[in-house]
Parts: sequence; C-alpha cells; structure tokens
Amino acid sequence: MATTPATPASLVALSFDGGALRAIDQTALPWEERRLELRTAEDVAAAIRRLAIRGAPLIGVAAAYGIVLELSRDPSMAALERATTLLRTARPTAVNLAWAVDRVRTAVEAGGDLVSTALEEARRIDAEEEAASNGIAAHGADLLAGARRILTHCNTGALAAPGRGTALAVIAELADRGRLQHVLATESRPLLQGARLTAYELAALGIRHELIVDSAAAGLIAAGEVDAVIVGCDRVAANGDVANKVGTYGLALAANAAGIPFVVAGPTSTIDLATASGREITIEDRNPDEVRLAAGQRLTLPNTPCRNPAFDVTPASLITALITERGTIRSPTTEALATHTAGSR
Amino acid sequence: MATTPATPASLVALSFDGGALRAIDQTALPWEERRLELRTAEDVAAAIRRLAIRGAPLIGVAAAYGIVLELSRDPSMAALERATTLLRTARPTAVNLAWAVDRVRTAVEAGGDLVSTALEEARRIDAEEEAASNGIAAHGADLLAGARRILTHCNTGALAAPGRGTALAVIAELADRGRLQHVLATESRPLLQGARLTAYELAALGIRHELIVDSAAAGLIAAGEVDAVIVGCDRVAANGDVANKVGTYGLALAANAAGIPFVVAGPTSTIDLATASGREITIEDRNPDEVRLAAGQRLTLPNTPCRNPAFDVTPASLITALITERGTIRSPTTEALATHTAGSR
Repeated sequence: MATTPATPASLVALSFDGGALRAIDQTALPWEERRLELRTAEDVAAAIRRLAIRGAPLIGVAAAYGIVLELSRDPSMAALERATTLLRTARPTAVNLAWAVDRVRTAVEAGGDLVSTALEEARRIDAEEEAASNGIAAHGADLLAGARRILTHCNTGALAAPGRGTALAVIAELADRGRLQHVLATESRPLLQGARLTAYELAALGIRHELIVDSAAAGLIAAGEVDAVIVGCDRVAANGDVANKVGTYGLALAANAAGIPFVVAGPTSTIDLATASGREITIEDRNPDEVRLAAGQRLTLPNTPCRNPAFDVTPASLITALITERGTIRSPTTEALATHTAGSR
Repeated sequence: MATTPATPASLVALSFDGGALRAIDQTALPWEERRLELRTAEDVAAAIRRLAIRGAPLIGVAAAYGIVLELSRDPSMAALERATTLLRTARPTAVNLAWAVDRVRTAVEAGGDLVSTALEEARRIDAEEEAASNGIAAHGADLLAGARRILTHCNTGALAAPGRGTALAVIAELADRGRLQHVLATESRPLLQGARLTAYELAALGIRHELIVDSAAAGLIAAGEVDAVIVGCDRVAANGDVANKVGTYGLALAANAAGIPFVVAGPTSTIDLATASGREITIEDRNPDEVRLAAGQRLTLPNTPCRNPAFDVTPASLITALITERGTIRSPTTEALATHTAGSR
C-alpha cells in the first residue's frame, strides 16, 4: 500500500452523474484513494454493507441514488419495489437509510416520470443533508464555544455525511472560529474509522489531534484532559436514547462522571419518532472476523469465538444536548423531540 | 507465523534453573512459543520493558530472579545496587516490581552469602505469589459463586502471575466448580493481551468464551449480558484506588451503572500503602507506535500523533470488592486496607 495520504481536496465521498454513483471506497482509506463506480441498486447496497460507503447520513443519500440507478435501468414499479427492499435492508441500525429510501419511494409513487421524480428527490435529500451539516456545525460550535479540548469517536466528517459532516463538522467550525486547541480521536475498533478516517480528516483540516485506543478515553476524561465529548448518531429514538458506534455509551458514562458535556450531533433525518426507546433499536451484529483482524492482520487464533455488536445505545439521561440543523435540544425528552421535529421533511 | 497454538501444558511463564531465567516470550504468543533464556539483570529488565514478561505479579518475580542472575556474575554490593536500580525502573506503574526488588535487596543487605541469600528470597517470593494465586482463586470464587457470565479485561492468568494468575484464576476456579457459563474477554488494545493471551488461556482451560473489542464491553454490560466484572491490578493505593490496564476505569463505570459487581483481584504485594491515592500513581505512557500498529500492522498514517497511556485509575468508590490471598475486602477504604495488610511480608 502507498503511504501517501489522498489529498484533502479529494474528500468528496459521493457524487452522482446520472449514469453512476461515484464513491470513495472508505475501506481503502487512508492508504489508497480507490474510486468506485456504482451502476445498480445492488452495487450500492453491497458498498453500504461492506462499509465502503458509511456514516448514517451518507448511506441514506447513497441509497436514494441507488433507487435512481435501478429505475434508470428498468423504469417500473417492480424495480422500485426491488430496489427499496434491497437498500432498506442493507444495514439495520441507522434510520437514515430507510428514511431516505422511503422518501424517494413516496415521491415516485405520487406520480410523474419515475426516473426524473426519483432523481429530483434524491438530489433534494442530498442538498438538504449538506445544508443540515452547515446548520449542525454552527449550532454545535455555539453550544461548545467554551470547549478547547474535545474528544470524538468514530468518523463523522466529510466522509460520513454530505457537506462537512456532523460531530466533526462542529469540531471543524470550532477550529475555524479559532478557539479549538486539541482533539482526541478514538481509533474506533474494530474497523478503525477513527484511526483511518478521522485522523486523516483532522490532518487535512490542519487541526491538532492525537489518536488514542478506545479504552483510553475514559481515563483521560477522568484526568481532566477533555472539555467536551461530541459524537454522531445512527438513530435517535423518540425518547432521546441514541444508537451510535459501539463505544459511545462508555464515553457518555465517562463524560457524565467527569461533569463535562456529552453532545450528540446529527441531522433530523436521524430522529426516529416511530421507535419509542433505545430498547427497540436493532443493533447490528457484524462478522466476527472484524474482531479477529485489524486492517487485515490476525490478532487472535483463527478459531477464537468473537462477538461483534457494531453499535450501542446511550440513554437520553446521559446526553447533555442533541444538535440538529434546526438547533440544540438540551436534555432530550420525548416532548422536546416531538416539538423539534414537527413538520419534518 | 504458525497457526497452531502452543500446547496448554507448556504454559509455564517463568522458570529459574540457577544459571538462567527461562521465560515464554509473551509478545510472540499465541502464534509462536518462543523461549527466552535470560542471563543478566539487563536481559530481564529488557524483557519486562518490551512486555515479553508481563503481569504485575510476574514481573515482580522475574525481577527478583534478575538480581540473583546479576549477583551470580558479580557477587558484590555494587552489582546489587546496579541490578536493583535497573530492575526497579523497568516499568513504573505495577508496584510488585519495586516490592520484589526491595525484598531481595533487604534480604541480601541483612548479610550472608549474597547469591544464596538472594536466590532464597527470590524463590520465597515466587512460592508465596503462587500460593497467593490459589488463595485469590478460592476467595474470588466464593464471592462470585452466583455469577454465571463474567467479563474480564487484559490478561490475568498463568501468563501474568505465578500459579493460575489473579482474576483469571478466579474464573478458572468458578469453572472448576461447575457453575460458570461464559466469559467475555476484551481484546485489550493496544497490545492485545486479551485477544492473544486470554483467549488462548481460556481455550486451553476449556472455558466457553467470546472475544470482544474493548469498547463493546459497556453496551453488553448495560444490555444485561454480564453478571460480574473481574480484573487484576497493577497498584492498589492506600485508599483503595486501583491502577490497572487502560480501560479498567470504563468497565468499572459500566458495571456500577448496571448494578453488577466490579471486583479487583491481586496478591497483597500489589497493595501500596505508601501511595495515598490514585492521583499519586505514575501512569506509564508507552510508545505511540503501539497505537499506530496492531500485531505489527499499520492502522493509521505513519505521522498520526498518538497518545498511549498504558493504565488508568479506578476510584475505590466504584470497586465492589478487592480480593487478595488473605480474603475479600468489600468497599475498600484506607482503614480496611491497613488492617488487611497488617504484618504483610
């Protein structure tokens, strides 16, 4: 593998040219900037399943374009049905996926030319999520204006969402405002989105940072080395419980024990009022080989039994604030979330 | 590397034959059973520094034999001075190292033949720590008699201490008593003592287990999948605060939030009454390359800044019980620890 990082300017995670969805293969970063050309809904679903395209908002947008691709090849309601089922089930935890697919499907079912209607809706979702990223960045930076040293988990930047991302967009905005000193980034085992992607994005943004193993976060927080923790989210239940990358719950416990803010950032498309609480969120169990290996290297004997939950649930009671493009919800509750999302897209 | 695990019967971490200290190189396990023959105090110190010999009780015993080796080559007080300084500073956090070195030094300084006095004291420490392991196993298994599903961190078995180990000795004893269902073992990044050593020992012991990434522990505990957490320790301060492998504090937070026991096991040699609280314990910062790599494989760009604290501190308030060879201290306090260690070796 090459040791030169891909150039910062090339961080366009997705682009759609009508005939193909072009994506960076995020499994190859930071060593190689491998471009994917996806031409069918199955191509897109496969890229989502193997995490070549990842990040809750981004997989929603990718899936929306996936329907367009399928309808372009076969402009029929049967193709719509096939594509929505395939894409909706590519991964279970992030609600943005089903949300985006359902929006495109509803638009197409309402009538008009199948392909152009689907494309229009997909482009609208893409633009909305990009605008949401800017809103999240601004609201988050307002809320965390006093924080100099921030800890974040997994990857939530320009590779995880249209625009600048979610939690990492807040961090980038704080840096732009000139007040940020330092970021601690967790490596995010098993697939190392922190080590591979966040460290790479922070370097590209010129933000001072240090990478740590996931389990070092709690002790450094307790030692007073962190002013705030900010993470993304894959699904926010109606009561404010949050499913996010495995390890998030432990960070919330540590932040609360230390009395520092634990902040969750995501577009309103991540809020799922149909799921009452975190207990009802399906947690994806992924291939145990992800635990047995790191970047392809064996870490344990090949027959070691492994368990690989990809997410965990953080109860609303541990969340200082939820930030969306619409603003900040302090101490999220069922009532606050219902009000916040009223009239949602 | 070979894919066949070393045979269980060969799990003798250390043996001393007068001329050399023979040790398994724990950095090569589980793929290769590489034997080291250490002939000088510097050999032993180097093996401890690079974690070829590791585990708080084991490095104490190894250091004791290291002094014997040095005195065998040069039976002088200057050699004693040189060896104690070298070995005492090989690693800073586990107090067993300084404790064992100081015991041998004190014995030698009291008079008699330098080499035979040192050897006698080293063998006494070795035998005492092995006996301690059995005591810990019995007391721990009594305390956790109702626990069927146990989570443990790092490696605390026959590779970490003379005899059966500490926390893993308790687990082995529970299995012997026929009540244990299942163990969750954390991989223990960065150096993967859980993935490499604990999974290997559990397999050798025939105990059902699953390996998880470190950050998955908190969510699985919250989901009700664990009855108790048990870990080892590198230094117990006078007030009951515990320094142990990085990640221990986060496990204690999760166990406390879930209302399950968080138990710490170690010989009384790990209790350091001279250190008032956890704040005074030196936390070893190790080479950042340990974070950049896993089992030799690069995980991030080579220039990524990394931070690598090897330990963290768990406050006494989160510890349900401390188990030593002398028994169980529930809710450790300064008074309880002073009483428990009265008349200590």
